[in-house]
Amino acid sequence: MKRHNFSAGPCILPQEVFQEASEAILNFNNSGLSILEISHRSKDFVDVMDEARNLALELLGLEGKGYKALFLQGGASTQFLMTAYNLLQKKAGYLNTGTWSDKAIKEAKLFGEVVEIASSKDANYNYIPKGYEIPKDLDYLHVTSNNTIFGTQMKDFPEVDCPLICDMSSDIFSRQIDFSQFDLIYAGAQKNMGPAGTTLVVVQEDILGKVSRAIPSMMDYKTHISKSSMFNTPAVYAVYVSMLTMRWLKNLGGIAAIEEMNDRKATLLYSEIELNPLFKGFAAKEDRSTMNATFSLTDEDLKETFDAMWQEAGINGLNGHRSVGGYRASMYNALSLESVGTLVDVMSELERKA
Amino acid sequence: MKRHNFSAGPCILPQEVFQEASEAILNFNNSGLSILEISHRSKDFVDVMDEARNLALELLGLEGKGYKALFLQGGASTQFLMTAYNLLQKKAGYLNTGTWSDKAIKEAKLFGEVVEIASSKDANYNYIPKGYEIPKDLDYLHVTSNNTIFGTQMKDFPEVDCPLICDMSSDIFSRQIDFSQFDLIYAGAQKNMGPAGTTLVVVQEDILGKVSRAIPSMMDYKTHISKSSMFNTPAVYAVYVSMLTMRWLKNLGGIAAIEEMNDRKATLLYSEIELNPLFKGFAAKEDRSTMNATFSLTDEDLKETFDAMWQEAGINGLNGHRSVGGYRASMYNALSLESVGTLVDVMSELERKA
Repeated sequence: MKRHNFSAGPCILPQEVFQEASEAILNFNNSGLSILEISHRSKDFVDVMDEARNLALELLGLEGKGYKALFLQGGASTQFLMTAYNLLQKKAGYLNTGTWSDKAIKEAKLFGEVVEIASSKDANYNYIPKGYEIPKDLDYLHVTSNNTIFGTQMKDFPEVDCPLICDMSSDIFSRQIDFSQFDLIYAGAQKNMGPAGTTLVVVQEDILGKVSRAIPSMMDYKTHISKSSMFNTPAVYAVYVSMLTMRWLKNLGGIAAIEEMNDRKATLLYSEIELNPLFKGFAAKEDRSTMNATFSLTDEDLKETFDAMWQEAGINGLNGHRSVGGYRASMYNALSLESVGTLVDVMSELERKA
Repeated sequence: MKRHNFSAGPCILPQEVFQEASEAILNFNNSGLSILEISHRSKDFVDVMDEARNLALELLGLEGKGYKALFLQGGASTQFLMTAYNLLQKKAGYLNTGTWSDKAIKEAKLFGEVVEIASSKDANYNYIPKGYEIPKDLDYLHVTSNNTIFGTQMKDFPEVDCPLICDMSSDIFSRQIDFSQFDLIYAGAQKNMGPAGTTLVVVQEDILGKVSRAIPSMMDYKTHISKSSMFNTPAVYAVYVSMLTMRWLKNLGGIAAIEEMNDRKATLLYSEIELNPLFKGFAAKEDRSTMNATFSLTDEDLKETFDAMWQEAGINGLNGHRSVGGYRASMYNALSLESVGTLVDVMSELERKA
């Protein structure tokens, strides 16, 4: 039976990427060796790392603009810490739009003063704050573009005089934005980019080197830039599969092409949530994410029936996060419109049955 | 042609592990899903993580002795920093046996006083220092059990009153040691344990929580212990393949069985290096590593011939590190005696030819 994988992350990647990724475990580049057993200093792997770094900048339209792309380890959780380590001298601003922003704030507080410039915590983060004021003396402003747990997504980004940092873990490569408005973007790979185990960091080099503290080598972006992201052994396989996924996206037509498909999927599902009286959406309409749709049943008594129906249809990963409850349908780049259609069919079928 | 992979790391893993690891990319546990697209919170993956953590303790004979096993990200290079972050209050001792010890020392100096209790730098690290005195007031003593680059290996470990920390990246699971003499062991996976991208940390819990500094969440061993190594998304695939490799080792008879095979391989190669007048070893005889044999030609004019011969025989990864030159044959757990035999044959053949 075909599976429809709505998992929030790690999540679905293109089937053709899995195919190539599986073959490389047995015989990489016709070398007779597994990609898992070759030196990360071999030409074959250096080529992979270079292509991955170039593709990231190319897809984001950031080539030749002073940005460097790195593939690090430790996930976004390590970036919460590294951004502050490298950039927070006195005071930083954070927009609090959910669990991940909140965690980023907690880590930054160890390094300096943190101003929460706005928060939607009062409504369990079901909207994106707007109309806030931004202090003038910030070392940087940190925002989270998409909130996986709550299903909200920033549609516009604040204009600021200081460096703008964005945690783009759950919607990178999904929609056209002027990425040059950011000075540092980071993203754990395990949504639109690749498997868990590597983190993309894209940083405008000239914002670095301005804090007075000593930074440990592995925490210092400059270390990694100076070694082209190969200061120490990288997460070889995670970088490789990310490279394959970015190649797939490029061949598809890049972010412009995938955005159109993502919009179509989101429109299909949100229409059903709005029209079907058995469901209600969680996130404020204008802030709804094209990546993660959060919704629940209007009548909890239907839960057992609905759960059995979507599981029977081959759907996977639909349970909501415990902070929100209900359901969450994650519609990352590799998820087909057909899979969303299958879910919508089940939702309509429930309405007919109920 | 059969390949004989002597790569220093990432390096050879068992062929049957590659087979299973390749299949799991397409269909993991008969779920119809790739291991790369499932949630790390799914039962299937939680089982993998639990088995990996249990196998590590079981293989080391450390079950039920207050140790916790963690699979973190960032390699040994991140452990250089984390060990000091968590344990260095005033003064720590380091035994300097090579490049990696040296890097560990550099990071620790950011956190407190570091005493280099002995060093073999005077002889380009071709031996393990002995007979040194250890100060009484150390927060911990840090040693490196095996020095990949130089081909030396500690055969005995100092008895100390303070916690003993060991970087075991390149010889963990290769020989029987009383592992309970260490309070913290760490090892990048990419030699005897699995692919690059995860790092095993085995820590005696009661040494933690004694420094006064605030520790960022991701740098704090206690964070990871409290979440059973799942504080954030782990390096799913690297942990999975490490688990498969540890399972393979357990089925083989554990460390006792592999030690016997490793000894046999090392004996075969070192005998040839000693008996063949065309080669000389780099490391002091009593400190030679069973994992990495470093040697060079006595007559550099034979280099081109020798290089062509071993490459023709299907041998891979034999070039020495630039700090030492010559050759390095890494004989990790998964390398067969047959592969070492092939190399020895080529060395003998060179003698006959020359």
